[in-house]
Amino acid sequence: MKIRNNAPETTAPNWKKAIYRVVFEADTKPGKIFDVVLLWTILFSVFIVMLESISEFKSSFGIVFVKLEWAFTILFTAEYLFRIISVAKPRRYIFSFYGIVDFLAIVPTYLSLLVTGSHFLVVVRILRLLRVFRIFKLTQFLSQAEILLAALKASRPKIIVFLLTVFSIVIIIGSLIYVLEGPENGFRNIPLSIYWAIVTLTTVGYGDISPQTPAGQFFASIVMIIGYAIIAVPTGIVSVELAEASRKGKGRVSICPGCKNKDNDADARFCKRCGIELLSAD
Amino acid sequence: MKIRNNAPETTAPNWKKAIYRVVFEADTKPGKIFDVVLLWTILFSVFIVMLESISEFKSSFGIVFVKLEWAFTILFTAEYLFRIISVAKPRRYIFSFYGIVDFLAIVPTYLSLLVTGSHFLVVVRILRLLRVFRIFKLTQFLSQAEILLAALKASRPKIIVFLLTVFSIVIIIGSLIYVLEGPENGFRNIPLSIYWAIVTLTTVGYGDISPQTPAGQFFASIVMIIGYAIIAVPTGIVSVELAEASRKGKGRVSICPGCKNKDNDADARFCKRCGIELLSAD
Amino acid sequence: MKIRNNAPETTAPNWKKAIYRVVFEADTKPGKIFDVVLLWTILFSVFIVMLESISEFKSSFGIVFVKLEWAFTILFTAEYLFRIISVAKPRRYIFSFYGIVDFLAIVPTYLSLLVTGSHFLVVVRILRLLRVFRIFKLTQFLSQAEILLAALKASRPKIIVFLLTVFSIVIIIGSLIYVLEGPENGFRNIPLSIYWAIVTLTTVGYGDISPQTPAGQFFASIVMIIGYAIIAVPTGIVSVELAEASRKGKGRVSICPGCKNKDNDADARFCKRCGIELLSAD
Amino acid sequence: MKIRNNAPETTAPNWKKAIYRVVFEADTKPGKIFDVVLLWTILFSVFIVMLESISEFKSSFGIVFVKLEWAFTILFTAEYLFRIISVAKPRRYIFSFYGIVDFLAIVPTYLSLLVTGSHFLVVVRILRLLRVFRIFKLTQFLSQAEILLAALKASRPKIIVFLLTVFSIVIIIGSLIYVLEGPENGFRNIPLSIYWAIVTLTTVGYGDISPQTPAGQFFASIVMIIGYAIIAVPTGIVSVELAEASRKGKGRVSICPGCKNKDNDADARFCKRCGIELLSAD
Repeated sequence: MKIRNNAPETTAPNWKKAIYRVVFEADTKPGKIFDVVLLWTILFSVFIVMLESISEFKSSFGIVFVKLEWAFTILFTAEYLFRIISVAKPRRYIFSFYGIVDFLAIVPTYLSLLVTGSHFLVVVRILRLLRVFRIFKLTQFLSQAEILLAALKASRPKIIVFLLTVFSIVIIIGSLIYVLEGPENGFRNIPLSIYWAIVTLTTVGYGDISPQTPAGQFFASIVMIIGYAIIAVPTGIVSVELAEASRKGKGRVSICPGCKNKDNDADARFCKRCGIELLSAD
Repeated sequence: MKIRNNAPETTAPNWKKAIYRVVFEADTKPGKIFDVVLLWTILFSVFIVMLESISEFKSSFGIVFVKLEWAFTILFTAEYLFRIISVAKPRRYIFSFYGIVDFLAIVPTYLSLLVTGSHFLVVVRILRLLRVFRIFKLTQFLSQAEILLAALKASRPKIIVFLLTVFSIVIIIGSLIYVLEGPENGFRNIPLSIYWAIVTLTTVGYGDISPQTPAGQFFASIVMIIGYAIIAVPTGIVSVELAEASRKGKGRVSICPGCKNKDNDADARFCKRCGIELLSAD
Repeated sequence: MKIRNNAPETTAPNWKKAIYRVVFEADTKPGKIFDVVLLWTILFSVFIVMLESISEFKSSFGIVFVKLEWAFTILFTAEYLFRIISVAKPRRYIFSFYGIVDFLAIVPTYLSLLVTGSHFLVVVRILRLLRVFRIFKLTQFLSQAEILLAALKASRPKIIVFLLTVFSIVIIIGSLIYVLEGPENGFRNIPLSIYWAIVTLTTVGYGDISPQTPAGQFFASIVMIIGYAIIAVPTGIVSVELAEASRKGKGRVSICPGCKNKDNDADARFCKRCGIELLSAD
Repeated sequence: MKIRNNAPETTAPNWKKAIYRVVFEADTKPGKIFDVVLLWTILFSVFIVMLESISEFKSSFGIVFVKLEWAFTILFTAEYLFRIISVAKPRRYIFSFYGIVDFLAIVPTYLSLLVTGSHFLVVVRILRLLRVFRIFKLTQFLSQAEILLAALKASRPKIIVFLLTVFSIVIIIGSLIYVLEGPENGFRNIPLSIYWAIVTLTTVGYGDISPQTPAGQFFASIVMIIGYAIIAVPTGIVSVELAEASRKGKGRVSICPGCKNKDNDADARFCKRCGIELLSAD
């Protein structure tokens, strides 16, 4: 989520620097106003898209919605262009996380000229709020978000192994229930049966498809009990990594004066890597 | 949940002090009786409201229910007024947590003269039980409740970050499924699709709306697997904070005067590392 | 779950002691055979009750089932009487956990002469298996069960506070949804709406009742998100207590030679209660 | 999951050794190519089986599917025979985990000549991917998988106790709801009612069967609240064991030669308590 420094060079023309300061930063008055306006514009434009999807509103205010949506899109397009011309290295911005989100936030409206319905995808704009949060330096929340992210990142290899296992399990469960119940009981084909297996294992349980024969219900019971054990695994993984991340994020870690090692425990009196006595950081 | 001291001044008239002792405290005989009567009156009045909502009972005993409800409301209103006149600073009581609950416990009945059906909201009376619990000094449970509350409070920043993320995710998921399935498959508009996304991510899974097309079902499967990972996060957060709160709640840890070991249990009288007697920290 | 010693006195007649050794103990050949036969008889009798409930089987083998059930009941009644006459203090056995289960395991069949259908309750016999497990001294599993039980017992005050809170919350949620949706959308009365609230908060989500109006769906979404946070609490509680119980159950605890304190940590060198040096238990 | 060494003896003919190196190992060029081809063949054959189950595709490409399936089966049969003749002890291979999976991956197609529909079970081929993963030495993931497996294995006794308890509980719950609701409300017999109990306790909640009478709904509410507490148990178990396994997996902890402190991290070179250099334990 970190944006690498992409400010215009000191030799850049002044208008470029001025634009950059307004659209990318929030430490000047205009920059702050710009961000607040942006925040509300994004929220309002997403709100309009939602309203538009409700047929009662669309039939009454259809033209207003279309006009508003194009207005927002043109506005965001202008902002996007301003961002491109004001940064030092446009390519770096365009392919950064925020650059891609900014692009995806405007392209569906243009696409809707070709493909009907696609303009609803502009709700991806909601991700643009991330930038606004960042700019307002909601540091308390960001540090918490970092702990959560760190825990999730540390869990990644375990989660991948876990997902691959679940992936194999649902294919086998899906095929077995397909053989047991068959198309006449709603399990029309194996992909649909795998969908049922996922719905069951994750304990969502829509009930749009459910086993009808005693054999199928017996098998489904076993699957649910297995799901019981399986659902415990990601929770356990995240809990453990979160405890770890939280512990690390919390301890007033003394940086070793010798080797600059920051990985010492909070209760360490000597650096565990070079043996030098740590100075109290309190 | 703490009530700040609001007892009448020592210079207040005696009848004021007497009322205060009865309605706010439980260490005298009349105060205790008052609280026990209050406890059962609250439970009984909530029970009556529930019975009234059942049409079979209402058609038979409708008038009895209405009369009882007004009786309870007048009783609680009198109690509310007694509370106001007996405290030192009425405003402080009125805008305290309990003051608001006491007010909400009577206002729906009066409102029902204007808006039909609103009188069912008197069930908020159930929250008045909290006061009764507090008065009876069910200390063991209260200390446990405090540990739970402490854990939830400590989790708050993480939970807020988490909820904002979930909020963004369900908007995007809702819009995508709306584009994939469309109104003809029950996803009538984006807000309804977001409702479906929440029903699915939280693994509630009513099944009143469920994807019908293979593309929608494939997407829903991914959403459920994501929900699997997401549901692990709040559990992990609460577990970690609960472990922390539970550890802290165990006690005022005495620091060993000899080796400065802070890792002694709360019930230790001697440092477990160097054997020196610990001084009481209370 | 512990059975207090209730063996017949040494002065008791020999037939009493012999019966006791067979029906209550498993360290003699006949005692072991008795228990194995009992184990299978219980399983088989529960299996028969299940089969009987299936109408296809009942119409074909109805009379066989009835005869078998009476045979089992008479057998278990005889066993129950043998247990009563062989113990030292019959009253203590009758009102012990196992005594009550043994009684409940026979009484529904007799009751079925008066109340139709009640004989299905004999499945409570399945709890009799607990005794058999205990007798076979499946110690590894029992010690694990004890850790689980210890964790659940330690969680009890927190769980009770939690359940009372949930109890209050579902009453308020149920009433609110009843006002929002009303009888015309399936929320026929407040108790039914509370049932819906529980179905939703616990993420079971049958879908037999679900909100139909936008306002109701919006409210339900909030309830589900709250349920998300709430479901994390008992998991957190049990995890923490389980970690504690597991830690205690595991460490090779040195018993203090001075004060016999067994509550020292595994890494303690000095008894934390009396300060005496602990001898290594390894 | 470990395959015991089963390479042909040094005295074995060269063609045997050559086959072994290709089909069992991946450190030569042909061995690597063989494994990559195998990986894709497995995935493709499972994909074909899924497509075949979709009636729209089957009616159009039915013969192609049948031909492809037989081609894959003959290929895998050949591979299976090659594996048997190239190992030192065929019996050991045949009854190993991978040997059984390899056998199950071909037998359903042959069985389908006798039993219609059984050929869908060839999806068990997906388990063959496990071997491929192993061969590619995706060590990072495998070590994670080992931690997960270790945690699950350590949880086994607790999980078994837990499952036996759940098993007893659902039998009793199922019988009680059967008596309360009865066949006229969809609870046709006790096994079906037990199925409902499992669907409810695991919070899957299809809604194909749900209580209709107030008594049944009240009982179901209690069951759901109990399920709330019960679902916390496996999560707690796995979390605790995972924390343990993760801690252990982190390393061969060096005991400090000075103060015998065993609490140093795996990557510590100096004791964090006394500063003495740690000796490598590897």
